Amino acid sequence: MGDESYAPTPSTTFNRHKERGSYDAETIHNIFNTTSVAHVSFLPSPSDPFPVILPMIGQIGTYPGGDSDAGAACYLHGYVTGRLMKLSKDNPSPGLPVCVSATKVDGYKLALTPFHHSYNYRSALLQGHASLVADPNEKMWALELLTDAVIPGRWANSRRPDAAELAATSVIKIRIAAATAKTSASVPVDERKDLRNQDVVSSVWAGVVPVWECFGEPVPAPHNRVVKVPAHVAEFVKNENANAEEYAVWAAGHVPVKKKGDDDDDEEEED
Amino acid sequence: MGDESYAPTPSTTFNRHKERGSYDAETIHNIFNTTSVAHVSFLPSPSDPFPVILPMIGQIGTYPGGDSDAGAACYLHGYVTGRLMKLSKDNPSPGLPVCVSATKVDGYKLALTPFHHSYNYRSALLQGHASLVADPNEKMWALELLTDAVIPGRWANSRRPDAAELAATSVIKIRIAAATAKTSASVPVDERKDLRNQDVVSSVWAGVVPVWECFGEPVPAPHNRVVKVPAHVAEFVKNENANAEEYAVWAAGHVPVKKKGDDDDDEEEED
Repeated sequence: MGDESYAPTPSTTFNRHKERGSYDAETIHNIFNTTSVAHVSFLPSPSDPFPVILPMIGQIGTYPGGDSDAGAACYLHGYVTGRLMKLSKDNPSPGLPVCVSATKVDGYKLALTPFHHSYNYRSALLQGHASLVADPNEKMWALELLTDAVIPGRWANSRRPDAAELAATSVIKIRIAAATAKTSASVPVDERKDLRNQDVVSSVWAGVVPVWECFGEPVPAPHNRVVKVPAHVAEFVKNENANAEEYAVWAAGHVPVKKKGDDDDDEEEED
Repeated sequence: MGDESYAPTPSTTFNRHKERGSYDAETIHNIFNTTSVAHVSFLPSPSDPFPVILPMIGQIGTYPGGDSDAGAACYLHGYVTGRLMKLSKDNPSPGLPVCVSATKVDGYKLALTPFHHSYNYRSALLQGHASLVADPNEKMWALELLTDAVIPGRWANSRRPDAAELAATSVIKIRIAAATAKTSASVPVDERKDLRNQDVVSSVWAGVVPVWECFGEPVPAPHNRVVKVPAHVAEFVKNENANAEEYAVWAAGHVPVKKKGDDDDDEEEED
């Protein structure tokens, strides 16, 4: 998966809760590749003061047919006339500056006071330059990557795109300039003064409500003619649900070992 | 909740799938206010080409003590030294240009071909100017709004913030300049040529895997002394799970009535 860790930049240096931050490539890629929706931000035009954010499917991977030093990149796809596709086409080198974020919420941490309320979460951010993938082999490889990101094995278990469909779909590759992850997985933290306050501890429940993305029974389409839900779908639902619940419940009861230099407070993440 | 709908801008005009788009204020506010994490994008400095995205808790509300024509705004909070807090302070008028996005994934739509794969989803976007809330009454009102956004009634059922905690927390108010929602809730759509192709329909399963945010059994903290999980937490878990599952399963089987002018294709959302 390319480099083992990303270099910090002024924009991706952690100022607070350094113990939650990571530049580790595997951690970052894993969060992106297991999150169902990525948020992609860019400036639509130099005269517009506001960035926009589009929810998209994003996957990080290393194209095996590329230069050996090319490393991992983030792939997105969309309709050929979409705004992001056109801007990426119009900015061939170095590409359109974008930021992509992926966030999983794993639990609501309810402390004795709102100030110490927080989430268990896993979030990742990358910044880089987006450009259209021109190589048809890399494009086809990326479409398989993005399709199997939704449900593994789906590409092999559906009809391949035809020439018209490929022409109508653009694939974008983001060369990663900077990337970080931030995670929190623990019981809520409270202050000593509250733990000693009988009025507070006897009246306020403290704990974590675990939360995860839960997949339900697959619902066949009106035009479906295959009676049995195929293994790649059924297994995905079963495994995802079991793993997601297990992680969220584990995080809800996890007491991290405090290290020197860790921040004592634990309010909402914001930077 | 202020205006009944937001005016389109060049940046928020729908180019494709107009039938999925909405400027309706109630629809937009509802998506923001029921999504556990919002993604907030801004430019950290004029010399940095890349936007950043922070995952935060966001809520839209109308401060009852404000000017009668002030309308709804989006509120965020964070540690006082956070980057977004400092930038909002440094840009008092009209404020820091930001974009906020909230997305709920409701189902994976598996069509006969990857090109027609899609999600059921509800997403909302707003753009506006962020500035610090200076009025202590509005700040306290917003902190209650943000705390109860996580679990209704939590503010009344936990210790109120003290002066030091309030001083360490900044609240940001985003005056909304533009906002949109985009939603999809339907069975997968396939092309006539595939529906007539026996090889395809006899081998590819088509349908929707519903997905929702599922809350587990609350896990008491090691320092918790209240034996029974309180009603505001237990009710939240029960109601959220029932409503979320019901919506996702409904969307998975929903056959929309096609209107003139609707797009025929149905690939991934991207603009």
